[in-house]
Amino acid sequence: MIRVITLLTEFGLKDPYVGVMKGVIKRINPDVEIIDLSHEVPKYDIDTAALILWISYKFFPRKTIHVCVVDPGVGTSRKAILIVSRNYYFIGPDNGCLYPAAKSDGIEEVYDISNSAYGLERVSETFHGRDLFAPVAAYLSAGVSLEQLGERYQGELVKSWIWFAEKDDNCFHARAIYIDGFGNIMTNIPVEFIRDWDLGSRIKVTYSRGFIECPFVKSFGYVGEGEYACYINSWGFLEIGLNRGSAARKTGIVRKEALRVCRIE
Amino acid sequence: MIRVITLLTEFGLKDPYVGVMKGVIKRINPDVEIIDLSHEVPKYDIDTAALILWISYKFFPRKTIHVCVVDPGVGTSRKAILIVSRNYYFIGPDNGCLYPAAKSDGIEEVYDISNSAYGLERVSETFHGRDLFAPVAAYLSAGVSLEQLGERYQGELVKSWIWFAEKDDNCFHARAIYIDGFGNIMTNIPVEFIRDWDLGSRIKVTYSRGFIECPFVKSFGYVGEGEYACYINSWGFLEIGLNRGSAARKTGIVRKEALRVCRIE
Amino acid sequence: MIRVITLLTEFGLKDPYVGVMKGVIKRINPDVEIIDLSHEVPKYDIDTAALILWISYKFFPRKTIHVCVVDPGVGTSRKAILIVSRNYYFIGPDNGCLYPAAKSDGIEEVYDISNSAYGLERVSETFHGRDLFAPVAAYLSAGVSLEQLGERYQGELVKSWIWFAEKDDNCFHARAIYIDGFGNIMTNIPVEFIRDWDLGSRIKVTYSRGFIECPFVKSFGYVGEGEYACYINSWGFLEIGLNRGSAARKTGIVRKEALRVCRIE
Repeated sequence: MIRVITLLTEFGLKDPYVGVMKGVIKRINPDVEIIDLSHEVPKYDIDTAALILWISYKFFPRKTIHVCVVDPGVGTSRKAILIVSRNYYFIGPDNGCLYPAAKSDGIEEVYDISNSAYGLERVSETFHGRDLFAPVAAYLSAGVSLEQLGERYQGELVKSWIWFAEKDDNCFHARAIYIDGFGNIMTNIPVEFIRDWDLGSRIKVTYSRGFIECPFVKSFGYVGEGEYACYINSWGFLEIGLNRGSAARKTGIVRKEALRVCRIE
Repeated sequence: MIRVITLLTEFGLKDPYVGVMKGVIKRINPDVEIIDLSHEVPKYDIDTAALILWISYKFFPRKTIHVCVVDPGVGTSRKAILIVSRNYYFIGPDNGCLYPAAKSDGIEEVYDISNSAYGLERVSETFHGRDLFAPVAAYLSAGVSLEQLGERYQGELVKSWIWFAEKDDNCFHARAIYIDGFGNIMTNIPVEFIRDWDLGSRIKVTYSRGFIECPFVKSFGYVGEGEYACYINSWGFLEIGLNRGSAARKTGIVRKEALRVCRIE
Repeated sequence: MIRVITLLTEFGLKDPYVGVMKGVIKRINPDVEIIDLSHEVPKYDIDTAALILWISYKFFPRKTIHVCVVDPGVGTSRKAILIVSRNYYFIGPDNGCLYPAAKSDGIEEVYDISNSAYGLERVSETFHGRDLFAPVAAYLSAGVSLEQLGERYQGELVKSWIWFAEKDDNCFHARAIYIDGFGNIMTNIPVEFIRDWDLGSRIKVTYSRGFIECPFVKSFGYVGEGEYACYINSWGFLEIGLNRGSAARKTGIVRKEALRVCRIE
């Protein structure tokens, strides 16, 4: 049984867009639960939506339907898709935002829902979240079959990737792939790449405007207030934080900025 | 059976006001569901609350109770009302925020709940959302009769209107009635007024500080990045957008600003 | 039966942290409901979290589990605790954020859940909200016994207090303990301290940069637009507001600033 639908959008919470999507879902299936993943994906930023979905999807119950609406191409010829993966469903535009999560779970089938008979009666050109993705997710949760919701799609999906850092001696060619609300800078260096680092090692991070050094510690709680810390974050990636402050603001490092990360002792 | 209560307020999400309203509702009726429509109505802006409710209410299940708390007159003599319309219930202050939505659905009965016996034991002077509107909505959803919740009100309601644009040859005297989080500028020109416009027509929008021109297209996806587009938005109104940018920021047009909108070819 | 879990955090809503906590809870107990109290506690501000929880907790159904994650010490030796009070449960770090609420309800038992067997399989060093507090709350709501979730703790809790103002003739040595989204300034003068004030009394509030005067009224609706009002707010404390404006912005008074509040006539 499908009990949960998550929503990940670029809509923000000021406008009634998200609320109305929930109304549409509840009108179709009053019993399904809706959980907000985030509605503040930077606008038009498909990469960041893909990253958030990829790190988050597996914390939800099996069979959860993950709906992502970061959709700058709405109203054009981009496809609308439903991906069935080993443990989850993913619904959204075929622009790459669903791909890394679905791929990591194991894609089993894809359906083209661009012209689904289960959208609202009149589908607008600008708000497929409300008119197509929400109702298709709701009908899926209510038991409508995949074959009814769309038609099997065997073509290529638009792909996007979570690129990992590349190793180069004691250094990595890395990138700041996410900056959270605390100003912590998540890199694309997964824990598996730095199994040989010891707690207490010193790390040097070079970026466009300069460099910083930080100890490799268990968490930001292990350095003094206002000091930099490098640690494995809760998603399993090397992160640069500042105890009780914003590493992003202090360094000026921005999302997607290239970083050179070296263990120096 | 009533299953959904929506909340539309000016409270924002920083303070515990919205959370506490939900606590009060759940204490009375654990089975009703609460959906946030928006909590970021510009403070004291009854017109914008009325607009949001008017465009949104009908996407929710029949019998949904829509609660609106944009209430600068709280604690004064303004009435608190419950409107029964053909398909929905509306609860909030009698200041016009409920009126356009309820009117459009067809008002059937009004109850004065200012002194309802179903408010919290001690009703504060400043937070009727928690002390009056939330509990009355919850008791209504739990089956308490309208007559118990308030007394039938036959007087005049405070009215507010969604004013539509006025036609003048090939032009409209219009207004920017909503600016969304993307910076799209919604006008008060409904699709019915421009049935004779062809896709590809050129539109000129004159405002306080200048003018812009835009093609009339199906969606912002049909113009180049950084270009203006005029299209019917998902609520059925002419809107001015900028592909992957903010038309509001680029033009400087603000909420409620007068616009002259002409088809020039 | 436990039906509601509330969440109070410093995580904001941009990142997927809150959504993922909800996923973890739903995976364990699909039937419990989750209500957001606030996710915009000023970062690292344990006092403000404690205040919000203290004013809010009792508006929720009996047996609600209140989870607070304002947790600058995550990953260090601070304990994780579960407090059983007379009517509620409180879960979070032992840093004082739970204490005033739990104490006011009457603390009955405390459990140390720092090494609970009911956390996620791998508990990260930086996100106990997801890995420890959410699952423990979910298992508690699903019926797992307190003794299984943690071990009885008889030691001292880290305390924090809601300090009330001190009286000094017709004046109070007070403090701005909360500033809400409207810019209303909540003082630490409870209604019980000013039972002898009459509506219409004039109040003088002296602060670091100057002073203002305001009438003591029932609500901000009783003064003209743009005028200061002093009134008992909905939590039972003296508050300084500005009709249709922000008293905090106009005075420059900031959270935790000392105030001298005098009845002058």
